[in-house]
Amino acid sequence: MIDAFARIVDATGILTGGDIGPRYLNTRGHGVAGTPLCVLRPKTTAEVSEILKLCHARGQSIIAQGGMSGLVGGAAPLGGEVVLSLERMNQIEEFDAEGRTLTTQAGVILQTAHEYCEERGFMLPLDLGARGTATIGGVISTNAGGVRVIRYGMMRESVLGLEAVLADGTIISSMNKMLKNNAGYDLKHLFIGSEGTLGVVTRAVCRLRPKPKSVNTAFVGIDHFDDVVAFLGFLEGALGGELGSFEVMWGAYDQFVRERCPSLRPPLESGHGFYVLIETLGNDPTADSAKLEGLLAEVMDRKLIVDAALAQSEQQRAAFWAIRENAGEGFRTLGPMCTYDVSMPIKAMGTFGIRVTDSINAAFQGATTLVLGHMGDGNLHVVAAVGSGSPEIHKQINDIVYGVIRDLGGSISAEHGIGTEKKDYLSWSRSAEEIALMRALKHTLDPKGILNPGKVI
Amino acid sequence: MIDAFARIVDATGILTGGDIGPRYLNTRGHGVAGTPLCVLRPKTTAEVSEILKLCHARGQSIIAQGGMSGLVGGAAPLGGEVVLSLERMNQIEEFDAEGRTLTTQAGVILQTAHEYCEERGFMLPLDLGARGTATIGGVISTNAGGVRVIRYGMMRESVLGLEAVLADGTIISSMNKMLKNNAGYDLKHLFIGSEGTLGVVTRAVCRLRPKPKSVNTAFVGIDHFDDVVAFLGFLEGALGGELGSFEVMWGAYDQFVRERCPSLRPPLESGHGFYVLIETLGNDPTADSAKLEGLLAEVMDRKLIVDAALAQSEQQRAAFWAIRENAGEGFRTLGPMCTYDVSMPIKAMGTFGIRVTDSINAAFQGATTLVLGHMGDGNLHVVAAVGSGSPEIHKQINDIVYGVIRDLGGSISAEHGIGTEKKDYLSWSRSAEEIALMRALKHTLDPKGILNPGKVI
Repeated sequence: MIDAFARIVDATGILTGGDIGPRYLNTRGHGVAGTPLCVLRPKTTAEVSEILKLCHARGQSIIAQGGMSGLVGGAAPLGGEVVLSLERMNQIEEFDAEGRTLTTQAGVILQTAHEYCEERGFMLPLDLGARGTATIGGVISTNAGGVRVIRYGMMRESVLGLEAVLADGTIISSMNKMLKNNAGYDLKHLFIGSEGTLGVVTRAVCRLRPKPKSVNTAFVGIDHFDDVVAFLGFLEGALGGELGSFEVMWGAYDQFVRERCPSLRPPLESGHGFYVLIETLGNDPTADSAKLEGLLAEVMDRKLIVDAALAQSEQQRAAFWAIRENAGEGFRTLGPMCTYDVSMPIKAMGTFGIRVTDSINAAFQGATTLVLGHMGDGNLHVVAAVGSGSPEIHKQINDIVYGVIRDLGGSISAEHGIGTEKKDYLSWSRSAEEIALMRALKHTLDPKGILNPGKVI
Repeated sequence: MIDAFARIVDATGILTGGDIGPRYLNTRGHGVAGTPLCVLRPKTTAEVSEILKLCHARGQSIIAQGGMSGLVGGAAPLGGEVVLSLERMNQIEEFDAEGRTLTTQAGVILQTAHEYCEERGFMLPLDLGARGTATIGGVISTNAGGVRVIRYGMMRESVLGLEAVLADGTIISSMNKMLKNNAGYDLKHLFIGSEGTLGVVTRAVCRLRPKPKSVNTAFVGIDHFDDVVAFLGFLEGALGGELGSFEVMWGAYDQFVRERCPSLRPPLESGHGFYVLIETLGNDPTADSAKLEGLLAEVMDRKLIVDAALAQSEQQRAAFWAIRENAGEGFRTLGPMCTYDVSMPIKAMGTFGIRVTDSINAAFQGATTLVLGHMGDGNLHVVAAVGSGSPEIHKQINDIVYGVIRDLGGSISAEHGIGTEKKDYLSWSRSAEEIALMRALKHTLDPKGILNPGKVI
């Protein structure tokens, strides 16, 4: 088998035994990775196709890997698989300014694509904390979300076309470059968000947007959850397409930041029920800041919000975002944590925060429960630190969080996917009929079950 | 069979023989419809499920019908099918202001949904000429486009969740209400744009947007195609998310309007190479008009555009749009027409217009060839009137238009779908591997081939 692979890729394209570095085993703390048979690092779609043909003929399982920044164990080997790393398929193939598209191989790092586009006056809207390691193929395969979804949608909305290789090596090249294409079934959606279980994404055409000319950021304190909802509705209406982010942090998170994150400097006083970080992406640098200031004054007059700070410099803007994104120093003091990424109808979020916090506190004395997230997208994250964080405790907290989500009609995964981490809970968000249809699709596209086995379904 | 159906739907829910009115046979001029076995008009998803179970057991073909405004014969009976009209499933089920969603049955008329949302300060972005007859289920099944795609995307982007019934009667209820949901495969995309061949859409959750506070419309004259492309790029950059429409008409269309449409009043002088209708959807009624005027003055100084008129009233705005949309009186004088809906990379559009016009004129003396469309979306329409418009002539013109599209890497269907009308040409836009995968999906979801047979693939 290894010999056969060696005839497909070049000498540095195959790693075995001790040469398989930790990069290929990284599971971000979710379980222990198994030992793969080997790691293959192809450079072309044709090589990927040859590798899959061989695996298909032999019934050999295979896992496609991008930047390994996933959070649900979706790309971690369980043992005995071939790891197919797309890391050397890292070419930007075409930039089309008129059509506003970027065509790349799957292994291009997200941040590389960002910088390439920004130099040319455009933006690839998808953005997330792991931008320095995540790849285009990875964010497509997981349908990544991030902090600008309210304005630009998930990664799915930025993919115009893609090329994928099926389990049997068939190359499906759907490299569409148009906003409109209704010639038959839109096959790309099979491969977006299916975490490498239905095919391997090798190339893509991404839709670009004009780079916004002004960014304005504010940190807002609000006392009641209903007011947070009303504030979001107000901003959406007043700003239309210009609202880029609406990130909410429950009061307990603010307390946690003040107590455990000495390097962070909250811009508002403590004690509010909720803190909201908002960002507008506009096109009029001279007027946009005053516009946001005016809107904040208006809602303060109406008592919807109780305090607000507008970032006056890029440094202040970074400081605001750090409170939302860079609380690592505090998390490290909490001990083992269980983290969640869930979504629900926006009006259910207040209830969710209360029920989850109360239920965890009732079950575990001294627990720390923090709730925050991308409220504009219906997406919350929960961080729960309970004693040893043993597998038993982890399961108990899973049951609490996903149980509340099930009751509220939400989803056990907003943007991280299912992987191995959430597989046991898929039926808490999806019906038996939906899961049966997923299995039917899996069987049609991968009849031998060689693509990323043991993940998602 | 009819008796069995009569036990599922109520007395007015079944039509046979002479009671089957022309509504159910309407093909908008594309071929002659066959005679269906009967028409069923269920009121609930459960009834649809029972009907499909029965059809599946008996191998009875069945066609779901919405408002019958499709343009490619996708919902026309070919003969012997059961017609499943969703017209009585016309309930608006839920409006969620906080979550900005509208939940409806599939048979709700698009315009009814528009008016319902607008009264509440929101908009369902999808809009097209057939809004008074097209249904929510129909625009989902065809993934309709229209005049605001550059800003809000196709119908697919406005569908958060849906419920569909499979060929065997299984109900797939994926009524997601969140912008983010990565819990397993996103099954809704199977049913969006597959023209009723993979399942019957019965209900949907649509994403709403805040209603724009200002609309500004301009008619612009431009001499060279490269300048049209540059003007689009300039507006996209300057207006960001506010550009709602960018509709281009080739000079020959302007001539046609002046000669054959006496009720239309072009606002600019004749003789320009291209006319562009632009519309911005903004949030500042006091400043947006002046902003657009300033941008137009800037590009006129730069000689990118040569003439422009800004609509000063709703009446003028309607008159501008009438030139683009209401040329029916002129079309009727042309005799039989072949019409096309194609997409291509934006920079290829200039070549497309020249090649198609020259090729048709070279093949047919006295032909009229008009090119116009949603340029911002890569979508052009072609109207060709050639003599008798016989099937042979129609095929010759198809071969010319789709041949140019194939050479330019475009799509034979931008927004109308495939139906029966474009089925023979699907392979001109999609590869053998893509079509084989479409067939595999069709076989998995509808193994007996009872759903809308003879359409798409």
